[in-house]
Amino acid sequence: MGNCCERLGPQKNTYMRVSLPAVCFVWQIAMIILFGVFIRYGKESEARWVEYRHNNNLTDLDNDFYFRYPSFQDVHVMIFVGFGFLMTFLKRYSYGGVGFNFLIASFGLQWALLMQGWFHSLDLDTGKIYIGVENIINADFCCAGSLIAFGALLGKVSPVQLMVVTLFGITLFAVEEYIILELLHCRDAGGSMIIHCFGGYYGLAISWVLYRPNIHQSKHLNGSNYHSDLFAMIGTLFLWMFWPSFNGAIADHGDGQHRAFINTYIALASSVLTAVALSSMFHKRGKLDMVHIQNATLAGGVAMGTSAEFMITPYGSLIVGFCMGIISTFGYVFVTPFLEKTLKLQDTCGIHNLHAVPGMLGGFLGAVVAAAASEDVYGKEGLIHVFDKEGKYANRGMGTQGGYQAAGTCVAIAFGLVGGAIVGLILKIPIWGDAADDHCFDDEAYWELPEEEEEILPPVLEYNNHMIHKSQDIAESSFCAEQS
Amino acid sequence: MGNCCERLGPQKNTYMRVSLPAVCFVWQIAMIILFGVFIRYGKESEARWVEYRHNNNLTDLDNDFYFRYPSFQDVHVMIFVGFGFLMTFLKRYSYGGVGFNFLIASFGLQWALLMQGWFHSLDLDTGKIYIGVENIINADFCCAGSLIAFGALLGKVSPVQLMVVTLFGITLFAVEEYIILELLHCRDAGGSMIIHCFGGYYGLAISWVLYRPNIHQSKHLNGSNYHSDLFAMIGTLFLWMFWPSFNGAIADHGDGQHRAFINTYIALASSVLTAVALSSMFHKRGKLDMVHIQNATLAGGVAMGTSAEFMITPYGSLIVGFCMGIISTFGYVFVTPFLEKTLKLQDTCGIHNLHAVPGMLGGFLGAVVAAAASEDVYGKEGLIHVFDKEGKYANRGMGTQGGYQAAGTCVAIAFGLVGGAIVGLILKIPIWGDAADDHCFDDEAYWELPEEEEEILPPVLEYNNHMIHKSQDIAESSFCAEQS
Amino acid sequence: MGNCCERLGPQKNTYMRVSLPAVCFVWQIAMIILFGVFIRYGKESEARWVEYRHNNNLTDLDNDFYFRYPSFQDVHVMIFVGFGFLMTFLKRYSYGGVGFNFLIASFGLQWALLMQGWFHSLDLDTGKIYIGVENIINADFCCAGSLIAFGALLGKVSPVQLMVVTLFGITLFAVEEYIILELLHCRDAGGSMIIHCFGGYYGLAISWVLYRPNIHQSKHLNGSNYHSDLFAMIGTLFLWMFWPSFNGAIADHGDGQHRAFINTYIALASSVLTAVALSSMFHKRGKLDMVHIQNATLAGGVAMGTSAEFMITPYGSLIVGFCMGIISTFGYVFVTPFLEKTLKLQDTCGIHNLHAVPGMLGGFLGAVVAAAASEDVYGKEGLIHVFDKEGKYANRGMGTQGGYQAAGTCVAIAFGLVGGAIVGLILKIPIWGDAADDHCFDDEAYWELPEEEEEILPPVLEYNNHMIHKSQDIAESSFCAEQS
Repeated sequence: MGNCCERLGPQKNTYMRVSLPAVCFVWQIAMIILFGVFIRYGKESEARWVEYRHNNNLTDLDNDFYFRYPSFQDVHVMIFVGFGFLMTFLKRYSYGGVGFNFLIASFGLQWALLMQGWFHSLDLDTGKIYIGVENIINADFCCAGSLIAFGALLGKVSPVQLMVVTLFGITLFAVEEYIILELLHCRDAGGSMIIHCFGGYYGLAISWVLYRPNIHQSKHLNGSNYHSDLFAMIGTLFLWMFWPSFNGAIADHGDGQHRAFINTYIALASSVLTAVALSSMFHKRGKLDMVHIQNATLAGGVAMGTSAEFMITPYGSLIVGFCMGIISTFGYVFVTPFLEKTLKLQDTCGIHNLHAVPGMLGGFLGAVVAAAASEDVYGKEGLIHVFDKEGKYANRGMGTQGGYQAAGTCVAIAFGLVGGAIVGLILKIPIWGDAADDHCFDDEAYWELPEEEEEILPPVLEYNNHMIHKSQDIAESSFCAEQS
Repeated sequence: MGNCCERLGPQKNTYMRVSLPAVCFVWQIAMIILFGVFIRYGKESEARWVEYRHNNNLTDLDNDFYFRYPSFQDVHVMIFVGFGFLMTFLKRYSYGGVGFNFLIASFGLQWALLMQGWFHSLDLDTGKIYIGVENIINADFCCAGSLIAFGALLGKVSPVQLMVVTLFGITLFAVEEYIILELLHCRDAGGSMIIHCFGGYYGLAISWVLYRPNIHQSKHLNGSNYHSDLFAMIGTLFLWMFWPSFNGAIADHGDGQHRAFINTYIALASSVLTAVALSSMFHKRGKLDMVHIQNATLAGGVAMGTSAEFMITPYGSLIVGFCMGIISTFGYVFVTPFLEKTLKLQDTCGIHNLHAVPGMLGGFLGAVVAAAASEDVYGKEGLIHVFDKEGKYANRGMGTQGGYQAAGTCVAIAFGLVGGAIVGLILKIPIWGDAADDHCFDDEAYWELPEEEEEILPPVLEYNNHMIHKSQDIAESSFCAEQS
Repeated sequence: MGNCCERLGPQKNTYMRVSLPAVCFVWQIAMIILFGVFIRYGKESEARWVEYRHNNNLTDLDNDFYFRYPSFQDVHVMIFVGFGFLMTFLKRYSYGGVGFNFLIASFGLQWALLMQGWFHSLDLDTGKIYIGVENIINADFCCAGSLIAFGALLGKVSPVQLMVVTLFGITLFAVEEYIILELLHCRDAGGSMIIHCFGGYYGLAISWVLYRPNIHQSKHLNGSNYHSDLFAMIGTLFLWMFWPSFNGAIADHGDGQHRAFINTYIALASSVLTAVALSSMFHKRGKLDMVHIQNATLAGGVAMGTSAEFMITPYGSLIVGFCMGIISTFGYVFVTPFLEKTLKLQDTCGIHNLHAVPGMLGGFLGAVVAAAASEDVYGKEGLIHVFDKEGKYANRGMGTQGGYQAAGTCVAIAFGLVGGAIVGLILKIPIWGDAADDHCFDDEAYWELPEEEEEILPPVLEYNNHMIHKSQDIAESSFCAEQS
């Protein structure tokens, strides 16, 4: 498409032929070496399990695989199809949206297995990390943080920059997760704090540092068209449908998973109605905006991340979804433009409204719900079970637990903002091949695009062509006639 | 898009800015209040389950969650992606198809939890409804009835009207379900009668009352284009693939779910071949029609709804699918146009051929299969188990059971027709903001549509533009020359 | 679209109105008869299971359904949405890609239940085949072989030819599977040999026989456009995400399924990075090619088919994925064009690089991993369990097992090549209605295509039309002026 490239001007700075292959190869080889040193099959996934099972009178169904695999596959769909297709909404950056999502999640999950392994499940005797289905789910969760950050940067950074965002994002995630879950002993099954709040502020901080004053030059590409919005709806719906699995995937077996699923399912339904209501209210003719339908409908799931396994009650979940649909749509209509104008914060997908704020609110909500928990409602065993009140945490009061949950949310925000600012500064070094301000939101920079051909044009265009040539002929003949 | 709106003429009557937000807010707040009064976690989803489990020597796997959750998620995908994307086939109503489906299912499932709860699982001592995974699946099923009705109305009604259709649809559904399952003690695991037959006739009756004599004015938009048909195939395939889960989701644990799955899987495969065969036969050059591939291939699943958990035999399932593929395709080619001409019945998606008729036939088929059931085939325990022959129904003969099944189908039809007619009359009041006859099937009415821009046009159009201006210049110059 | 057909010239030879319905009807009726004679519910899916369960002190969860159903549904999605949408990448053959995939898989799974039943699970006493969830999964697997072959033939054959390809493909599959699994006693849980290697060479051999020297006449349609590539990404992602379920679906309960899932998950992640790296390296400006992202990212899953349930170690899986991403992308860039030039082998989807070669390498890899297996690593019971060392195979050494695995791979290649050549010769008979060389890759031949209408053109085209007419008028008036 020489002619097309010409039209768009020279794009020397987006040359990826050395840096992208180098990063992919070197980092993948590093993964292989580190996996070789550290990663081994867990007890339930190695062949000796048959003996272990016989010796402990277990059945095959006691393998954690059967408790978590269906939820895992749903989470996996959310990460790759959900996030991936949600980011195809830009009319000329759909390849980048779904393709880079694919790339960075594939790298991220490997690095997450290592980072989370070192922090959470390193066997100190053997120096190995033994993995099973729960580690795999957590690795997918860990990627989600970086994919959220990708949402704020969509269309403005190079794939190599995204790999860097992911490398640091996973690393920061594992550390904040360690602090929040292990040191503060918080509960966060669906990751309102750890995933959404952290990921949201991480992405916003990076985007703030990478502010592009002249991005309005790409304004004509920073929008959707009819079909790109439909592709994005594929992402929205798979995220929406499988969010109950997301929040319940690593909840406690039995009632924990069951309750997390019910709460999330209910909250999401409620978000849809208020998102639709506000979308219509904020349009001068009452029309719905696809941006709100694609995003704000999901806010209830984000906010339920921490509380999903708690006894928040079904109507409590409805109320959470109700408020989140309102807050999130409000954010898309007013807060994002405001942030861009006053804070110089460019947020392509509006992750501020879908992840950062609902995640933060979900974290604080979890603190309140935890503080309000009582043996009366949970039962004696139930309270111990849900809040994992064992060992040195057996006597922690529920008010104290609430305080720690709130502290955990602050940790997540701090990690996001500080980590993001540092990563942003690293990405500002002009070596990463990001596009110029007038070439953002354009797949042309990093993708070989198919040529569009005359043959597939609808008949009316054929007709146009025909008439153009005809009228041209006539005009020319009349022009010649005059000359003579 | 002022210019575009202008072209389409004034659309004052589709102004939704007051009514849609009002309906969403008020109804959602009503849901919160009613959930607060009535809905509580069930035994298996509340935190006290740990104690219950210990006291009853159960394991976590005995939680119904693990029996039904994978099927639930499949059903959930059918409701939101299956139905939603199937209805994107119209070239300019894809947003409405998938978006309104999203809205009304999200409202419907909340209302269904209440309505079905009151009729089926209200605890009379406490006055509460205790919910778990099975209630959630049933709520999704209940929505399906109204979504089917949406198919007949697609492109012709406003979102507020659809909310009304759903409100009444769910209500009627819960009542007819109560009559069919509790009073008549019918079996209908996959809902041929309760879901498809009812939903089909409900939608047809509404559409019949709302007859639009001048809808031919929107004829140019009542069709697909190349890519909208591909989006619709996403819906078709997810419906087709997950239909075995639909029919088995609430079947008996063990052999019941297993058999429902096998029967449905087989019947659907058979439908595909006969739908293809007839589609080709009915085209003068033997070409396939996407409408048939998108719809008639699913008819086998509809018709197996009631019989899926019975011992219909694998070849019996094949025969059902075989016939349904034929009947459904035949319906699309001949019956739908006939109904429109003679009965003044406009049925956008052809739900008559995919849901009403196959559902009705599936109901009667179930009656025959039930009447033919014997201890010989089912075993003594099996027959009791499959037909739930307990309590006062222990001595009901199989012939009688068949009679009740047939009666149940008639109840479903009656509820659909009468209920639909009444709802249709309510919707005829001219306050609901539906589009005029010449603005049907157009997202313009209810959606903020993205502007299509010059920048993304393929090169040939650039060329067109160039040549237009050039020939224009020439023409004008020649025109000027003459003047002088 | 008379005008359009005219433009494309007469297409008499693609007339399907007799042959396609005839094949569908006759074969479907044959299926019904054969199912009636041979197929019955298995022990776990018939109503008598309640009694069996009581007598054997089993619980409902011991029903194999609960071990395999979630994996089955993932496999099912891969077959219909994964393969189907992967083949929508051609700009004007998307209907054929997803539609014919739907048709032949629906026929293939029925025929597979019979063929695999006769060879693997025929009860010699009763002469019946008793089916359950494992048979259904295997039927889906069996279809995969023929769908792979479809990839090589995409756009060049008629639906009737595809039915023939499937009929013979399933038949050959069942026989080679019988030889490899039963006679040679190989292990091949994810089907590197049986499915991918066989299917790949089967399709290549057919395509080689059906060589079309003048296919360059359809060259303008043998490519993608922006949105068709996005549709294909739906296929890619569902294949990629669910491949762990594919490789683990029929692995041993417990650790077998768990390990197969982990190994495949890891290998696939690694493939993505090397596919991206090579795609960028091979483009002169470092841009990524959608063909590679859509296909080569999956090669790790293909190659892990045999070894997924072995103790290949996590880093071993990473290495396999690493190499396969490279080999497959290399194949797309260099080998496919080379094969077309030198061997006259036209391979539309490049199945050589995604299935044939990675499948073959996966088979040999499995041989090496099997030969290296030891009690040290697997445990005594584990080794017996994983390699099914029972009965007459109890004393087979692991080196010998490796040899048999290698022999199995050769059997798969031989069946593919010889079987494909014969089927290709059958398809060369000029009675099957395939399109002429200048009408390949065009849905026009077999599908009723929607008319594209003026009304939905974006405003700029409206403007074009307007200007055309205007300039025309001017030109004509000036022309007239001169005449006078």
